Amino acid sequence: MSVETHRLYAATTGGTDILNLTLPVTQLVEKSAVENGFITLFIPGSTAALTTIEFENGAIKDLREAINRIAPKDQYYAHNERWGDGNGFAHVRAALIGPSLYIPIIGSKTALGTWQQIVLLDFDNRPRERLILVQIFGQ
Amino acid sequence: MSVETHRLYAATTGGTDILNLTLPVTQLVEKSAVENGFITLFIPGSTAALTTIEFENGAIKDLREAINRIAPKDQYYAHNERWGDGNGFAHVRAALIGPSLYIPIIGSKTALGTWQQIVLLDFDNRPRERLILVQIFGQ
Amino acid sequence: MSVETHRLYAATTGGTDILNLTLPVTQLVEKSAVENGFITLFIPGSTAALTTIEFENGAIKDLREAINRIAPKDQYYAHNERWGDGNGFAHVRAALIGPSLYIPIIGSKTALGTWQQIVLLDFDNRPRERLILVQIFGQ
Repeated sequence: MSVETHRLYAATTGGTDILNLTLPVTQLVEKSAVENGFITLFIPGSTAALTTIEFENGAIKDLREAINRIAPKDQYYAHNERWGDGNGFAHVRAALIGPSLYIPIIGSKTALGTWQQIVLLDFDNRPRERLILVQIFGQ
Repeated sequence: MSVETHRLYAATTGGTDILNLTLPVTQLVEKSAVENGFITLFIPGSTAALTTIEFENGAIKDLREAINRIAPKDQYYAHNERWGDGNGFAHVRAALIGPSLYIPIIGSKTALGTWQQIVLLDFDNRPRERLILVQIFGQ
Repeated sequence: MSVETHRLYAATTGGTDILNLTLPVTQLVEKSAVENGFITLFIPGSTAALTTIEFENGAIKDLREAINRIAPKDQYYAHNERWGDGNGFAHVRAALIGPSLYIPIIGSKTALGTWQQIVLLDFDNRPRERLILVQIFGQ
């Protein structure tokens, strides 16, 4: 049983940027010696989140709109009074979706569904250089 | 430290079917040699999700209605223009809830709360034969 | 590769109490022999959840209000007809946010972002004595 920790980096644009991380993640799994186990992703930071979705323009647009209904950008947020950086909506969105993701590795492959892709959602209101921690466990 | 991978199958009906997986999952834990560790569930696919809830008709109905407020079935989804399968709402719902679940195993038992049950939420708009991957880790 | 299981306890007040668990969790990681691995948290119970957020009064207030938009306290819940305990909203909220959290441990430290804190959200409508299960895995 081993633990490997990897670092991925992603440059985001602000404005609920949704990035597809599937290729770099599956490449890490393919290069790993782990045949059976799991991979986890974690985003250090409180204005971004991780989930899976079919990475298709329409579905991404629909997800962005649903998130904007839950925590609209243009309304009052108490957080904005503290720092004046205007990203209160980003904190709420990130807390609701969550910072981590787990996917099994079976037969040296990431066990995603056919259309299921790993995505980073960056809710911050300015471009960010994001670190994503990826860990591979197994044997 | 060992890794076991199991496959559960569930036939769903379409229409935000919510299925109780607690019994088959706790049976896998009881049959396993793992005394201390954890169990994880993952649904490969982008129109279903996993969570925990008290599996009682009222609470299940309430959850279904809350999800329908967040991502209503009867509104425009850009995803539906791509494939014409009309399940855009299902993709958004699945991405918001998430595809995985983790529960500790302590003293050979799944450490759920008294009323807390493991549920599969299938948001797709047609019956599906679902695979749920279950992994048990520990010693 | 080892597994450690710890128990944290928290007294909550009812009324969507949001508690910062970062200090007791990071203390467990510091005391552990695990240098590289991960920590998981799980709340046994179906009216509470775990996530991360910047633990600042404004952001906490904003999160509480967003959750109240998704599953308002003052509306009809079918669950309330079953037990008459009036916490139907709490069950829905807990199921939407989820009962678990995963964070990597790298170089004997919890890999949280600078402002990112671990929080327990207790949605129940009465004070509770909560158990939080914390597991540390790694080498």
